Amino acid sequence: MIFPPTTLALSGERFLVHYQIRAADEADALARARGVCLEQTVETPDALLADDDIRGQVVGRIESLRAQGDGRFDAVISYAIETTALELTQLLNVMFGNTAMQQGIRVLHLDLPESLLAHFPGPRFGQPGLRALLDVPHRPLLGTALKPVGLSAGDLADLAHAIALGGVDIIKEDHGFTNQPFAPFAERVQRCANAVNRANAQTGYRCIYAPNVTAPADEILQRAHLAKAAGARAVMIAPGLTGWDAVRLLREDESLALPILSHPALLGTYVASPEQGIAHHVIFGQLPRLAGADATIFVNYGGRFPFTQADCQGIVAGASLPMGAYPAIFPMPGGGMTLERLPDMHAFYGDNVIFLVAGGLYANGPDLQENARQFRELAGSFRP
Amino acid sequence: MIFPPTTLALSGERFLVHYQIRAADEADALARARGVCLEQTVETPDALLADDDIRGQVVGRIESLRAQGDGRFDAVISYAIETTALELTQLLNVMFGNTAMQQGIRVLHLDLPESLLAHFPGPRFGQPGLRALLDVPHRPLLGTALKPVGLSAGDLADLAHAIALGGVDIIKEDHGFTNQPFAPFAERVQRCANAVNRANAQTGYRCIYAPNVTAPADEILQRAHLAKAAGARAVMIAPGLTGWDAVRLLREDESLALPILSHPALLGTYVASPEQGIAHHVIFGQLPRLAGADATIFVNYGGRFPFTQADCQGIVAGASLPMGAYPAIFPMPGGGMTLERLPDMHAFYGDNVIFLVAGGLYANGPDLQENARQFRELAGSFRP
Repeated sequence: MIFPPTTLALSGERFLVHYQIRAADEADALARARGVCLEQTVETPDALLADDDIRGQVVGRIESLRAQGDGRFDAVISYAIETTALELTQLLNVMFGNTAMQQGIRVLHLDLPESLLAHFPGPRFGQPGLRALLDVPHRPLLGTALKPVGLSAGDLADLAHAIALGGVDIIKEDHGFTNQPFAPFAERVQRCANAVNRANAQTGYRCIYAPNVTAPADEILQRAHLAKAAGARAVMIAPGLTGWDAVRLLREDESLALPILSHPALLGTYVASPEQGIAHHVIFGQLPRLAGADATIFVNYGGRFPFTQADCQGIVAGASLPMGAYPAIFPMPGGGMTLERLPDMHAFYGDNVIFLVAGGLYANGPDLQENARQFRELAGSFRP
Repeated sequence: MIFPPTTLALSGERFLVHYQIRAADEADALARARGVCLEQTVETPDALLADDDIRGQVVGRIESLRAQGDGRFDAVISYAIETTALELTQLLNVMFGNTAMQQGIRVLHLDLPESLLAHFPGPRFGQPGLRALLDVPHRPLLGTALKPVGLSAGDLADLAHAIALGGVDIIKEDHGFTNQPFAPFAERVQRCANAVNRANAQTGYRCIYAPNVTAPADEILQRAHLAKAAGARAVMIAPGLTGWDAVRLLREDESLALPILSHPALLGTYVASPEQGIAHHVIFGQLPRLAGADATIFVNYGGRFPFTQADCQGIVAGASLPMGAYPAIFPMPGGGMTLERLPDMHAFYGDNVIFLVAGGLYANGPDLQENARQFRELAGSFRP
């Protein structure tokens, strides 16, 4: 035996990953699930392992395997929490690192024990905290986006001013704004924050401007602090571009302490096939929340992207189902929404949602402030 | 017009992204390609744009659109290099950020002008630099992995010692090793580096130990420097877990200056469907090289993963085709390889490859040092 037998002093605490596995039959499904147990931990054939604590505790363990019809099986596999080293990067790796290269295996759900969740801070604000910041206790929140990339900082600030005067709650930037020469980050964020805060002073509203701090790895925190110093009251980041742990880093910065919006850029491929990748529920629901985001931006059903109602329901569940002591976070569906869609969106999402109407707000009529006012009026008309 | 007309002073330099688009017919393909041009830049309907430099220069431009049969079209779209803000995160975003949420669109190839490439450092060592470090001018390089997760630092060091004595060139860690309690990073890396360097002193070989520095965002550089101080002579990182820009960060650190191996964890979903995501060529070839890795680890055809020969050829092309002043980087195929596969791998990859034989090295026979010796003997038998 090449590997020496090993005795480990592990806690016995385990976390669960629910996988959907395509297989020819039950025996094949079992073999594939066993393959996942090894691949996601020791990356070593079972025959090479000693009959020790590595095989008994480190290797993933099949907790259940159920046929779902159509050649699909649901496998629940548990892993020792120690395999994650209590790192978000490594938790994602144990969940799906190498198995992402296999065909027909999809992550459906994470079930993380309090003993693991407690090592990650979770959302700082969540739904209740964001509502308190905005002083909007019940109704759906109103979100829009500054656009298009190419405008100057001054022109963008003018747009932000009009939108804030009209009464939108959250003005995020398009995720394509970073530090382009036509609207450099520092100047843009200062001008836009000033414009929104000036509008707030006039209206009495508490509109939040959320600049995009998706940036090179060594500039993310710096931009977030620059944003805060400029008077921005939230930030947006795209973990598909920066890595998920950058969200956690922003969340844990006690001197920053701003709400975080998570943007889906480059994550779409994980949900593009129903047989592979990571379910909407996990990647746009559970993961942003685990990483510490307060709202999760995604594309709504019936817009210009192919997400379905079931996909969106899964995201809402991930954003709000019990998850240790974490608060629920806001789903923020957008991607081709218009004011006409709001009643339908309200019927579907209820009050605990941020309506993200961006292009549709600009297209609604020639007066942007008036468009924003109509947006607010419509949202105010929804009775809880 | 809500958006003011804008005049921009752009360089006129553009980069190209080759997309595969599924469409019903040529008109549909053109409409989808136009959608990409807007989605990846201004995220605004064309009807809302002024007839200005935003529409003319910032919005992506279709350079060609060709039917490939079977409802597939190849679209080459160009973007102003200024849209990337010269940031790797934003370059990836312009390439595919929101479009990753569409069905049936895949990134096939990047064509980046020198004016853009020059802003990223590219590989520090590449093939020639890594060969010089190892003093192996011609033959294929030999790589293996330390495993399994669960062993103690001391036991892992014993394995590394035996492998290095046998003459393997590069010993990377399994990417599941981070900072687990059973083999904490600092202790493990110190012991393994010592073991490999002790073996080198005995053999005269220059075996390189490459610990995994995939870690929380604020610990990556720290671990890499700890590794260097311990005597490790390369590092491995998984950009699917950390974000791609973490590779660039390691590369640009002049006081680190170690070779970087890029690991494919969590990137598999991008290649899981031939109709979506990002082609092998790009995600395992061009991107690691652009980010500054010196070798790209992926799974070989005919192992325990479903990559094909064409997939692997695409990766080799991405790792070695002309790309500004960047050196070629090493393809490092593994994932179920054995010593028996080496002649076939050599016929396929030629000399400029790192054979990654990991589980197969341990399984080859009861004496690990002898297994490593046989590995070296086999590789030495290949005549250029």
